[in-house]
Amino acid sequence: MRIKNQDFLKRENQSLVLEMILNHGPISRAEISKRTRMSPTSASRIVATLLEEDLIREINILSEGIGRKATHFVPNEHSVLSIGVELNQNDLRIGFMNFVGKLIVLEHLKFASTDPHEIVGFITQRIQALIQKENINADKIVGVCVGLPGLVQHETGEVKISAQFSWKQVPLKKMLEEQLGFSVSVDNEMKLLALAEYNIDPQPEQETTIAMIGFGSGVGSALISNGQIYRGEGNFSGEIGHTIVDPFGIYCPCGNFGCLQTYIAEKFLLQEASKTVPIHTMEELYANYQLGEKWAVKILDKAIIYAAITINNVVCMYNPDTVVLTGTLIDKYPKIKEQIIQKCKDQIWAPVTESFRIRTTKTGVHGVVIGAAMGIQHDFIKNIHFNKETK
Amino acid sequence: MRIKNQDFLKRENQSLVLEMILNHGPISRAEISKRTRMSPTSASRIVATLLEEDLIREINILSEGIGRKATHFVPNEHSVLSIGVELNQNDLRIGFMNFVGKLIVLEHLKFASTDPHEIVGFITQRIQALIQKENINADKIVGVCVGLPGLVQHETGEVKISAQFSWKQVPLKKMLEEQLGFSVSVDNEMKLLALAEYNIDPQPEQETTIAMIGFGSGVGSALISNGQIYRGEGNFSGEIGHTIVDPFGIYCPCGNFGCLQTYIAEKFLLQEASKTVPIHTMEELYANYQLGEKWAVKILDKAIIYAAITINNVVCMYNPDTVVLTGTLIDKYPKIKEQIIQKCKDQIWAPVTESFRIRTTKTGVHGVVIGAAMGIQHDFIKNIHFNKETK
Repeated sequence: MRIKNQDFLKRENQSLVLEMILNHGPISRAEISKRTRMSPTSASRIVATLLEEDLIREINILSEGIGRKATHFVPNEHSVLSIGVELNQNDLRIGFMNFVGKLIVLEHLKFASTDPHEIVGFITQRIQALIQKENINADKIVGVCVGLPGLVQHETGEVKISAQFSWKQVPLKKMLEEQLGFSVSVDNEMKLLALAEYNIDPQPEQETTIAMIGFGSGVGSALISNGQIYRGEGNFSGEIGHTIVDPFGIYCPCGNFGCLQTYIAEKFLLQEASKTVPIHTMEELYANYQLGEKWAVKILDKAIIYAAITINNVVCMYNPDTVVLTGTLIDKYPKIKEQIIQKCKDQIWAPVTESFRIRTTKTGVHGVVIGAAMGIQHDFIKNIHFNKETK
Repeated sequence: MRIKNQDFLKRENQSLVLEMILNHGPISRAEISKRTRMSPTSASRIVATLLEEDLIREINILSEGIGRKATHFVPNEHSVLSIGVELNQNDLRIGFMNFVGKLIVLEHLKFASTDPHEIVGFITQRIQALIQKENINADKIVGVCVGLPGLVQHETGEVKISAQFSWKQVPLKKMLEEQLGFSVSVDNEMKLLALAEYNIDPQPEQETTIAMIGFGSGVGSALISNGQIYRGEGNFSGEIGHTIVDPFGIYCPCGNFGCLQTYIAEKFLLQEASKTVPIHTMEELYANYQLGEKWAVKILDKAIIYAAITINNVVCMYNPDTVVLTGTLIDKYPKIKEQIIQKCKDQIWAPVTESFRIRTTKTGVHGVVIGAAMGIQHDFIKNIHFNKETK
């Protein structure tokens, strides 16, 4: 039971006015008061505090008709910076986001290491170099969020398990905070991507329940409900790759047989293909599929069917209004993407066929970085609280 | 963006004080003020309103030590009644719940009809008869909720599809409201049962994310997160029975092949068994299983494996802290229940094995009725709002 008292209300109202200016600025005092249904006095008092804290700034706009200038407020884009990091086995992306959601610094590096200390050292060094190079005022940085594939205990920032990095119980938040000196959070990449996709939509009111599904080196999913990441008890929700479809299926390194990912994930497709021909990459498999090589067609056709099933299964469990597809299988191979979407029409449980739409990502390759940086700013906005309000 | 203004706050505070008295009464004014962090004046004002509205009453308790009597408040158990109805193909349960969550009237009838008009007529007649017979003051009834198996559009109260009743687009809420004269809501039975199980727990703080799984005439699930039913876009979440495990599996009347329910649900088990011996009931199948008849053992052993997989798949998607099992397969056949729980230990994805506990229902056969009646009262409490507050 969440207690609503005056202090809590004040805090919520401060966040509310700030959000209003972030989402609807330039906006006047009168409009803020009207839209938030706060008294003009309360709205003005909060605006004054936000001005004093430098989070917003004034601009003058010539009113239509009368020709009188009216004071409006916009976010001070330079007042807050957050850093989003996407960590994968082969690359690292770092983005600095300003207070109006723009990535002002972006770096993409090829990088191959699975050693936590090496990775922490490298992220730290790159962030520090970027701060230096771009002449960033580090005081403006409110936090860093790292997204990676795996099970992440969001509250403690411990990576419980990551197959891609062969990690178990890596206290990534703690390690990075010690090196970086900023507040750090760690999260599952699919969850951050889903958050970015929810917030990037120009008409978010049309997409309220988003299910993200990724087909790549693994198979994963995430759910956004009412604008929030659905985490479950320990932030382990959405692990559709380890739902079992056949108890007598292919062995999965997790120890079970017939996990859904064994039918779709790249590693397993290549494993299957290499029984016939000595190929090592998805590009080779796809090239042979394009040429109509029977073995390649059979393997990818089967993967396409199971990808379509994955979409059905996610829809049955989460009942989203929007399904967003991502991952190399979708992003790099348009013909496969088309087929998955086509096949999906046959496989979706009839009563829910019309209940959702499918799309690919709008945030593109920077999605995880955007979601990570956004998440940090959402937390910042939600938790602002200035006790001394200017009169 | 939910706007917090004074009026909204007042409304929330009224609900809050009422909830405090419902959950912690007998409770004094001072204690209410302390626990809600409201000013003593505000708390007293709301208490006065609730007394005037007859929702709570005063009792005097002798303070320890001093021997002075102090006024405490308890809910007025007779002030509010809600009616929960469980509708199944073969039976109908009706329960009247008073304001302290006690079922004061309970009826269980065998009933076989799938005709919506006949069913609506029967429910209406039984509720009216119970009101008469039990001498109920109908003015106290704040609403009726009907739970049934199927896809229910909760907001409109339309049953979109119910395989058990062979219904499509039945406007049950509208039909019942016309006959009954009370406000009616309609919901999926698994969701109501989950709500009951969440609220019935004596230490609800230990169970925050509950996944309900039912194995019976169908296979279904439901999720409670932060005390709320997770509904999804159209209240169709949790339909695990129609997640597909084998695209070349057994034909399911939904039009797909290999839906998970085709491996577990009674109808399919009997269908499979009847290929060997002419049996017609689960009791016969179970009796043969108990006798060690090879065909019965094979069929039920397979069902047990797929039930264990179902639990794994729900846990992977929802990451609950508690899994509650229900349905005839669990409730009527203890040996099968034991085996499912045993098998489940092998099938759960290793990293999440320790993340949840499994139990059966605490609300028993009245679970759906309890959840339905509770849901009505929750809505009532959340929406109370008395504009005139006594001073």
